[in-house]
Amino acid sequence: MKLAQPLQTLIDELLKLPTIGPKSAQRLAMFILKLSDDEAKQLALSIIEAKRKVFPCPLCGYLTEINPCSICTDYRRDDTLLCIAEEVSDVMAIEKTGFNGRYFVLNKNFNLLKGTDVEEIDVQALQERIAKGGVEEVVLALNPDIDGEVLSRYLARIIARHGVKVTRLAHGLPVGGDIEFTDEITLKKAIEGRKEF
Amino acid sequence: MKLAQPLQTLIDELLKLPTIGPKSAQRLAMFILKLSDDEAKQLALSIIEAKRKVFPCPLCGYLTEINPCSICTDYRRDDTLLCIAEEVSDVMAIEKTGFNGRYFVLNKNFNLLKGTDVEEIDVQALQERIAKGGVEEVVLALNPDIDGEVLSRYLARIIARHGVKVTRLAHGLPVGGDIEFTDEITLKKAIEGRKEF
Repeated sequence: MKLAQPLQTLIDELLKLPTIGPKSAQRLAMFILKLSDDEAKQLALSIIEAKRKVFPCPLCGYLTEINPCSICTDYRRDDTLLCIAEEVSDVMAIEKTGFNGRYFVLNKNFNLLKGTDVEEIDVQALQERIAKGGVEEVVLALNPDIDGEVLSRYLARIIARHGVKVTRLAHGLPVGGDIEFTDEITLKKAIEGRKEF
Repeated sequence: MKLAQPLQTLIDELLKLPTIGPKSAQRLAMFILKLSDDEAKQLALSIIEAKRKVFPCPLCGYLTEINPCSICTDYRRDDTLLCIAEEVSDVMAIEKTGFNGRYFVLNKNFNLLKGTDVEEIDVQALQERIAKGGVEEVVLALNPDIDGEVLSRYLARIIARHGVKVTRLAHGLPVGGDIEFTDEITLKKAIEGRKEF
């Protein structure tokens, strides 16, 4: 079967997106073709505009359209608390918790299996940020996996040189989880980190 | 948390797509922002171009960029066999089987629960197509559900007036399926439609 070329091109483009397989790409393409001209244009334009106007904040690495970003310029935030995250999407998740400090986003996928070296992480900007003073505690909010562990240790060593307190997110039972089905490492950490009731 | 406006707009636009929830929309948006300028433009352009150049074939309703479509102009196909499908995506699926007849796509979502009436189906074009002659058998390839059943009966009655043979896709066990877990109606149809080994 040969599809109309622009339709095939659209499907091929959609296929490049993560989690979109051949069936999804076809379904999305059919949906897009049924949109009104204006709706389709809006969708296309939103891609172009986001790409053109959004950039990582030079101060913290969060995605923004203003420089510096709205988090960096929010005077109500706690300047003494700096949270290091790997990705902007991690910051989005942490923001939902009401965390009120500042951020430093590494914007670098650290993956030992893919051969990323910790040395590739740009710690220069991070060090300058801390050296400027004001930060009393750095919270390492990296993923609770091997990569996050390695990276956390590396960063903790560097940050400690500045005489700043370094903390990390707690390990433990996920809320709503089930002790019976919790892996033994997590359960061990939850016991170690038990808190007074 | 306030996201950069163009990023929020992009996420909102992606959210309008079927099967894309808030998490997927955010993930796709982050992916799009990491594309190169060229890649993002290609994606946006593929939407505009598909929307602009692709239209339903006036003869059969299949999506095409040429008029008539490549299926209608394929002289190697069997003119005596006409397959009626509800959606273009159904034709795409049937094409993969090597079916070699012509098509007539209704391009109308028939849904009794949503109050679609069979009278809303444009049978005028279908009748003209059959009246032109040449078609000896019409295969009804509508979904094997209540809506498909109602629509099939309606269309069969209309087509029969033209003295043309009307067939429908066989009901039975899906290949790779499991008798134990097959619903009783399907199993009943499979027994009724049993074939000599």
